[in-house]
Amino acid sequence: MKRTLGVCYYPEHWPEDLWADDATRMVRAGLSWVRIGEFAWSRIEPKPETFDWEWLDRAIDTLGEAGLKIILGTPTATPPRWMLEKHPDMLAVDEQGRPRGFGSRRHYCFSHQGYRAESRRITAILAERYGANRHIAAWQTDNEYACHDTTRSYSSAALAGFQTWLAQKYQSTDALNRAWGNVFWSMECDDFTDIGLPNLTVTEPNHPHVLDFYRYSSDMVADFNREQVAEIRERSTAPIIHNYMGRETSFDHFKVGADLDIASWDSYPIGFLSDRLEGAPDFKARFMRQGHPDNQAFHHDLYRAVGRAGGAPSPAGGRWWVMEQQPGPVNWAPYNPAPLPGMARLWAWEAFAHGAETVCYFRWRQAPWAQEQMHAGLLRPDNEDAPALAECLQVAREIETLPDVGTARADVALVFDYESAWAWEAQPQGADFDQFRLAFAAYRACRRLGLNVDILPPDAADLSAYKITLAPGIMSVSAPLKQALAATPEGHVALIGPRTDTKTEHLSIPTPMGPNIDPLDLAVTLTESIPPQASIPLENGGQFLHWREVPEGSAPVLLRCADGLPAIAGGPLRYLAGWPDDPTWDTILRGVCDEVGLTHHTLPDGLRIRDTDTHRFVFNYAPEPLLWNGTAIPPAGVHWEAL
Amino acid sequence: MKRTLGVCYYPEHWPEDLWADDATRMVRAGLSWVRIGEFAWSRIEPKPETFDWEWLDRAIDTLGEAGLKIILGTPTATPPRWMLEKHPDMLAVDEQGRPRGFGSRRHYCFSHQGYRAESRRITAILAERYGANRHIAAWQTDNEYACHDTTRSYSSAALAGFQTWLAQKYQSTDALNRAWGNVFWSMECDDFTDIGLPNLTVTEPNHPHVLDFYRYSSDMVADFNREQVAEIRERSTAPIIHNYMGRETSFDHFKVGADLDIASWDSYPIGFLSDRLEGAPDFKARFMRQGHPDNQAFHHDLYRAVGRAGGAPSPAGGRWWVMEQQPGPVNWAPYNPAPLPGMARLWAWEAFAHGAETVCYFRWRQAPWAQEQMHAGLLRPDNEDAPALAECLQVAREIETLPDVGTARADVALVFDYESAWAWEAQPQGADFDQFRLAFAAYRACRRLGLNVDILPPDAADLSAYKITLAPGIMSVSAPLKQALAATPEGHVALIGPRTDTKTEHLSIPTPMGPNIDPLDLAVTLTESIPPQASIPLENGGQFLHWREVPEGSAPVLLRCADGLPAIAGGPLRYLAGWPDDPTWDTILRGVCDEVGLTHHTLPDGLRIRDTDTHRFVFNYAPEPLLWNGTAIPPAGVHWEAL
Amino acid sequence: MKRTLGVCYYPEHWPEDLWADDATRMVRAGLSWVRIGEFAWSRIEPKPETFDWEWLDRAIDTLGEAGLKIILGTPTATPPRWMLEKHPDMLAVDEQGRPRGFGSRRHYCFSHQGYRAESRRITAILAERYGANRHIAAWQTDNEYACHDTTRSYSSAALAGFQTWLAQKYQSTDALNRAWGNVFWSMECDDFTDIGLPNLTVTEPNHPHVLDFYRYSSDMVADFNREQVAEIRERSTAPIIHNYMGRETSFDHFKVGADLDIASWDSYPIGFLSDRLEGAPDFKARFMRQGHPDNQAFHHDLYRAVGRAGGAPSPAGGRWWVMEQQPGPVNWAPYNPAPLPGMARLWAWEAFAHGAETVCYFRWRQAPWAQEQMHAGLLRPDNEDAPALAECLQVAREIETLPDVGTARADVALVFDYESAWAWEAQPQGADFDQFRLAFAAYRACRRLGLNVDILPPDAADLSAYKITLAPGIMSVSAPLKQALAATPEGHVALIGPRTDTKTEHLSIPTPMGPNIDPLDLAVTLTESIPPQASIPLENGGQFLHWREVPEGSAPVLLRCADGLPAIAGGPLRYLAGWPDDPTWDTILRGVCDEVGLTHHTLPDGLRIRDTDTHRFVFNYAPEPLLWNGTAIPPAGVHWEAL
Repeated sequence: MKRTLGVCYYPEHWPEDLWADDATRMVRAGLSWVRIGEFAWSRIEPKPETFDWEWLDRAIDTLGEAGLKIILGTPTATPPRWMLEKHPDMLAVDEQGRPRGFGSRRHYCFSHQGYRAESRRITAILAERYGANRHIAAWQTDNEYACHDTTRSYSSAALAGFQTWLAQKYQSTDALNRAWGNVFWSMECDDFTDIGLPNLTVTEPNHPHVLDFYRYSSDMVADFNREQVAEIRERSTAPIIHNYMGRETSFDHFKVGADLDIASWDSYPIGFLSDRLEGAPDFKARFMRQGHPDNQAFHHDLYRAVGRAGGAPSPAGGRWWVMEQQPGPVNWAPYNPAPLPGMARLWAWEAFAHGAETVCYFRWRQAPWAQEQMHAGLLRPDNEDAPALAECLQVAREIETLPDVGTARADVALVFDYESAWAWEAQPQGADFDQFRLAFAAYRACRRLGLNVDILPPDAADLSAYKITLAPGIMSVSAPLKQALAATPEGHVALIGPRTDTKTEHLSIPTPMGPNIDPLDLAVTLTESIPPQASIPLENGGQFLHWREVPEGSAPVLLRCADGLPAIAGGPLRYLAGWPDDPTWDTILRGVCDEVGLTHHTLPDGLRIRDTDTHRFVFNYAPEPLLWNGTAIPPAGVHWEAL
Repeated sequence: MKRTLGVCYYPEHWPEDLWADDATRMVRAGLSWVRIGEFAWSRIEPKPETFDWEWLDRAIDTLGEAGLKIILGTPTATPPRWMLEKHPDMLAVDEQGRPRGFGSRRHYCFSHQGYRAESRRITAILAERYGANRHIAAWQTDNEYACHDTTRSYSSAALAGFQTWLAQKYQSTDALNRAWGNVFWSMECDDFTDIGLPNLTVTEPNHPHVLDFYRYSSDMVADFNREQVAEIRERSTAPIIHNYMGRETSFDHFKVGADLDIASWDSYPIGFLSDRLEGAPDFKARFMRQGHPDNQAFHHDLYRAVGRAGGAPSPAGGRWWVMEQQPGPVNWAPYNPAPLPGMARLWAWEAFAHGAETVCYFRWRQAPWAQEQMHAGLLRPDNEDAPALAECLQVAREIETLPDVGTARADVALVFDYESAWAWEAQPQGADFDQFRLAFAAYRACRRLGLNVDILPPDAADLSAYKITLAPGIMSVSAPLKQALAATPEGHVALIGPRTDTKTEHLSIPTPMGPNIDPLDLAVTLTESIPPQASIPLENGGQFLHWREVPEGSAPVLLRCADGLPAIAGGPLRYLAGWPDDPTWDTILRGVCDEVGLTHHTLPDGLRIRDTDTHRFVFNYAPEPLLWNGTAIPPAGVHWEAL
Repeated sequence: MKRTLGVCYYPEHWPEDLWADDATRMVRAGLSWVRIGEFAWSRIEPKPETFDWEWLDRAIDTLGEAGLKIILGTPTATPPRWMLEKHPDMLAVDEQGRPRGFGSRRHYCFSHQGYRAESRRITAILAERYGANRHIAAWQTDNEYACHDTTRSYSSAALAGFQTWLAQKYQSTDALNRAWGNVFWSMECDDFTDIGLPNLTVTEPNHPHVLDFYRYSSDMVADFNREQVAEIRERSTAPIIHNYMGRETSFDHFKVGADLDIASWDSYPIGFLSDRLEGAPDFKARFMRQGHPDNQAFHHDLYRAVGRAGGAPSPAGGRWWVMEQQPGPVNWAPYNPAPLPGMARLWAWEAFAHGAETVCYFRWRQAPWAQEQMHAGLLRPDNEDAPALAECLQVAREIETLPDVGTARADVALVFDYESAWAWEAQPQGADFDQFRLAFAAYRACRRLGLNVDILPPDAADLSAYKITLAPGIMSVSAPLKQALAATPEGHVALIGPRTDTKTEHLSIPTPMGPNIDPLDLAVTLTESIPPQASIPLENGGQFLHWREVPEGSAPVLLRCADGLPAIAGGPLRYLAGWPDDPTWDTILRGVCDEVGLTHHTLPDGLRIRDTDTHRFVFNYAPEPLLWNGTAIPPAGVHWEAL
């Protein structure tokens, strides 16, 4: 399958006489796709029920006639000002109880039924008009669900919705009281309308209460999206996509992805390193122009799995794209350095190597005004070429020489579970316990060893394709996954923990204490979180940080802490009773690789590899040249070789 | 007097068929006391005026018949959900103006008269039913007053109450305006209803305004408690207790304690070290499984004094208990490591050595759900023994061999004043000036020298039993204490300051400038707070941190700063004109000990001693063995010898 | 012109029988001026329309008859409590949406028309009564506009005012939508009443929206002040002054200053160093008793320029004073050390050397109560002399020996623009980009080289008097300044940038990209902000921090970054494409001095010089003696020599 490039474009931002020239230059730059429309509501429907389609018709024509395929976005992330006159209470409310006002974007509450109707209405109208348009080759629903902390709203619409959702789930308040343990502090309720939102309580609210609210909030995102999908599918056969964000765990992407054809995400490597990822200052300085060497790969693999949830067959596993690719400095991180020359190319090729069908740069031309005026594009605001344009063209030409990079493959499976992220957010027990951070630590270790990873959803039922399975921090393991883990054969290893299956689905402690997965005879009987200045030494010289557990049971101990307590115990299915630091992860995984017969590498700091079934790709994230099998890879260099 | 052990238990959390077995196991573990009921309101009165007593009757019977003495708690810290229907405005309001909602605990405003009536009502009903029950051997009022920052409420109930309180105190707004200096920024008021709460002002509110609000808020806690006490006393002769918290200075514990028979506190050494105490990272790492080596002792001595305020005679001074003793990891601190093996024993013995009658562990069995599901108990949630159970039993057996540890005694008095904590919170002058921190610094120095301390209330009238008296940071010294300090004889030393008696009771500067205590001829004429990166060197090689003052007067100078200004001046009554660092405290106190003929020790880091009139106890808080007189005390070790 | 001293005094705070003695002591201390009245509203008008003038009449008489000239303040910074009954909605609202309540000061919203009327009313009444009084020699409007973050209010009064202001400015919403780029996220509005205040939005509001709100808020301060000025001028010929604060950029002081006769500011060197200035801990420790060695000078030069905006002729450029001079420890900074002996003298002489006519100490006698009870005065609260009184007298005597210090002069011009501060606050792009910090960095470098600086407003039209002009960070250069910069002759240097003229007046990116100042052929095509742990090395060994730009064009490159990109390019008018660290600033400016033939010095750390046309003044801010031309200047020493 030949990979393609695209770009995000806002015809409504520019004089119409630029459009044709823009389209020509896009094609000349090697772009096939152009995404439009997702913030244009005020231009499509300037007044309620008054539509202005002409400009959009012409824009679609102009772009389409130039040979570009169009992704048309529903404009629901930016309802116009007049929408607030119709629905004054449609605004989300933040955790402090303040309405989140008009004046930027995403100013809606997912629970507000009035706005939900507006969302269906505008989607239906848009799909009706362009559903059969031959230039419209894909749809995007809304834009970056959850961005700016918008999944959860503490509005009265959310309160009413949550109470109904709870009534549906528990059927009786007795059942809810029991499930949550409401007797604990006389928190019992008699009626579902007694239940509040879990914010602004005197001290921490009941954790299962919080978890159910997070579940509800996630469901609202899925419902919102599903409603748009239904409207589009009635009127169009083009595939439907949503563009997810990075390190965003507030809703279950697998559930949203199940209703879509293609997953995509917005990849801002430098912004994410500055704003959203842990890292020592010297690490952040080293990679400040390249981004975290594992973060893009993690999200590629994650969203490939989310794409698979959509069920569409694809050579790469699930269908997925990068919908927005950083091309230069952005505006929104605390600090916004420019990419190293070559990174706009490297990031695209890395996406392809992980199975992306398409990479779209964001955006075509830097806007001269408004919030993102300092966000680079492929063109400068004065319409000159920006540095990334040449790199984009280079990628386009390279695609011609390497039309198919092969199908994604992996030897290691990593289970990722959004509910667990919510559970540990509700009850971290240690201030720095975070499910993304834990899963990413395991993932980074695989990458440092040159391993290829598939990320699996928490209901994965078959692990047989993977010699190694990692499932850290899965609050409560699902029945199918439990069965799959139990079936881990000799010659394979499934390493679960810390914290895996130590809770019920209601975020309570089970009896017998977990994990409860045959044939692993082991129970976590005591848990401790470790402050940053301390660690738990292991007998092999490694150490646990952040977290360690005291397991009991007959499971054979494979590694001990220096104080004699088990660090890893079990057989093919085994339990890791702490949070290893990076070198300890490496030691543990190297041992497991040797045990199951998987080749591993010792990669220099910043070099990363990714294999497909046909090629091996080597990427240099370091600011200096690094050697791969005797070949010097320059900074931001990409190297590939047939396998 | 034979010391006893107890445990906190929640029959309403467990199937009734576990109760009898629980009671048997408690007795077998050496426990004499069981505290119940303090969060059970929703089970006692599931609907307004509809009571369900049967379960509680049976629980009391089952526990009592097993031989346990019961402490019954009033359930007012957790009013049920229906209470909000009756009193929608009963919620406290935080300093930002937001109501503090239902969904955890302590969701009431002490000033709300409707809830105050409910508190009296449920207390009366409970006392009526169980006041004569032979198993009820003590009462607990409410639970952990002030916890979660709940002393102060910025509600309209608090506003109305505060205005009335002010009218009562000042009688005329002219008097109030003068007392507060309201002319300063045209803040004068004409009517008591003009006066607002001191939150959300443009810049800092007037400090005496703040101080009076803090006084009012403290009085409301005392009133609330006194009302419950009155209801119980009418119906029961069992002693009445409240369980205070650690490092909690928002209300005057002496005033609350005056209405009670026994003081108690909830001792969470590891949680407090992680969450509430200053300490360098390496110090916190060293003691992360043991707790601060002086914090428990400080609170033991403080609450012994608070118990004394109740007036009941006791061999140990005041009657006091540890009502909740940490048995394993807790859930609520930023990081929650497990105790070193032996600490659950050490903490109990340390309490006894300081005069505690009873130590109750919190809690019997770890709850599998709700907010504290990660809080260890003596049993695990699966009903197996948790590590602390064996230590509890060991203490119980040791009590048999050492039935009486003797009566508390001390050579050093330390005056502690809650009003001063409020005054310096209102007007710290230096960002790190905190009365608890200052008093604790003096206390810690005494402990490092192996001295035994009595903490005295600010109206102490007789210091003759103490060769050394310390009174740092007492805003405005009371008349009786002034007289007692003035009477310090040759051969004794009273060291006051910094900041002592430098304000009037209205938090203003007196003329003549203070301290105004005969025969000390000295006035603090100028004050400076010192940023963390700087210090004031003393001529003896020591230094002041945080704070120093410029005293003037004829008092003989005993120690000077390197710049020649007095650091300590006076005779038997002398003034300390700065905040010494730890080594400087040691030097100063060693000198004073030598002067008055008190033996002092040089204890290794982590070893602490405590004497009664019959025994010397030695405790090792360090993670390694330490030597005491040639005897190696293991980590978490307890050693005693007859005196 | 003979310089004078004064003091701030609050007769309403003291028994009347102290006044005459106070006046005598003031005169004896060498003071000529006394400021009174600015917080006395509740004493002047204790009830609405009920006035009590007698005490003020007598106070004015007593002070005036003693020979003191009086500055009378309008009391509008502290409206009495009863004002809130008349205007319950007069309170400002903070950015979080909370009204900022009564109980301190400055509790009014500049947009509230009701309070504006009250401000005019009380000013008129006061001016009517005392406008012709022979003792009233000057007026002060209000007190410290903006202090405590009070320029911007998010009240409904501000909303209405802002909408009207926008309608006035843009005339049509189409024009506004275009100017702001509201199409960007469908933020377009149809009616001016659609526009909200730029707070509490979901993510950042549109930057031009923010900038216009900041402009509006600044205009409200100017309007408020202008209204008071009009009332006074009708009734008095005495000059009118306002006392500005330090590092306060929230309103345009040039605009306010244009309506006044004299600028003044409140100089708290130690408080500002602790609270408001960047600096490494060792730097802050070194100068903790002296203040930042450049901060006072910067504000002296800034407010001399603001005084010039008032248009009154003066030997020193603009007429300006220090209205409040710190005399000892203050109360309001996080830490409040005492000044080094001599600093109260040094600060006064430094002000004179920069052209101040008068320096008034704040305050006469330390208040024993209320918010500022720990703020030192010239007298202690017990009426004894405080340390600064002797220094004040020394300055008074020295003035007799040096009646005229000459006229201010400068070789370097530094353009300072309040709008740019707002622009970069709205859109910093890097978290540590701050216009004051940038301008102050340039200023500090000048001071380290011993250069004398004039600060110029952003519409300066003539730079010919200055061999060197610096204009860093000027968002959008005004037409007159553009012309003046364009005219930079050979032998002079105007160094602009970083970020200068890179935006339109609507905070958008111009095409062609800026700077657009002939004959400088250079455009900033790409910008990056640099995290604190990184820097951009230059080929001369220097480095850029925080910020760097990629300029393109034919301008000759004068200095390059190590990566070859231009660091400085141009001719006499040249562009600096980054933010130099301190040593790099020194290198750059030394080179420019050599180029234009300006003498520069290499001053020891803490020594600063300031020239007038007759004298050179040398000040030692260091805590140790420093040498100037072989003469040892003691700590806090002042030295002058005729030029």
